[in-house]
Amino acid sequence: MKLKHKRSPCSIAGTLDFLGDKWTLILIRDLLGGKKRYNEFLASPEKIPTNILASRLKMMEEAGIVNKQRYSAHLRRFEYILTERGRDLWPVLQEIARWGKKHIDDTWDGPDWFWAGDKEKLKN
Amino acid sequence: MKLKHKRSPCSIAGTLDFLGDKWTLILIRDLLGGKKRYNEFLASPEKIPTNILASRLKMMEEAGIVNKQRYSAHLRRFEYILTERGRDLWPVLQEIARWGKKHIDDTWDGPDWFWAGDKEKLKN
Repeated sequence: MKLKHKRSPCSIAGTLDFLGDKWTLILIRDLLGGKKRYNEFLASPEKIPTNILASRLKMMEEAGIVNKQRYSAHLRRFEYILTERGRDLWPVLQEIARWGKKHIDDTWDGPDWFWAGDKEKLKN
Repeated sequence: MKLKHKRSPCSIAGTLDFLGDKWTLILIRDLLGGKKRYNEFLASPEKIPTNILASRLKMMEEAGIVNKQRYSAHLRRFEYILTERGRDLWPVLQEIARWGKKHIDDTWDGPDWFWAGDKEKLKN
């Protein structure tokens, strides 16, 4: 099922309704890199605040960008896995990273798998 | 002169330090489409609030994404023109638009010039 735009039918504005903040695309980066769990997201160097992490994961789940699945039989512990809709954000991240590499000082280069962007090879 | 990253040396996080909000990339869209003046930005269908418009234009000027130039000899009226650094955001917008077209209902398609992305043809 498709998402609903909020501010206008422009596809840029519509996308930013969901992803236009400082954190969501960083979580997508982490998910593409294989992170799945709360503590893994919290360990990233940007130090996402816990309340923002919780609200972004909830939004991403509602928007069909991630699937949430329980990984412990007896504890309420969940993993988050990118859906096809989430993996479709890869080219957005590649272009954002390309701009950053060119215009921001002292940035890390992404690993080869990031630039290759092969959705089939992403292990979930 | 290059920009400074804030949260981490990741080029994605660094870019989102500047562009990670609901409005800045919409202004870039408008600037790519030839808008230059306050009233033109305010007239866009997303209805950017005036105070946000002012703060984003100031940030973009300080980050070297736009140049501000006076267009009236006797009034304090300014136009904003994308720099090369600003025009380099075009592929980011294209990928954002592509995702929106695919995953958000009832979105407009961009015009041909937007998808062509020919920086040389952009008139300033």
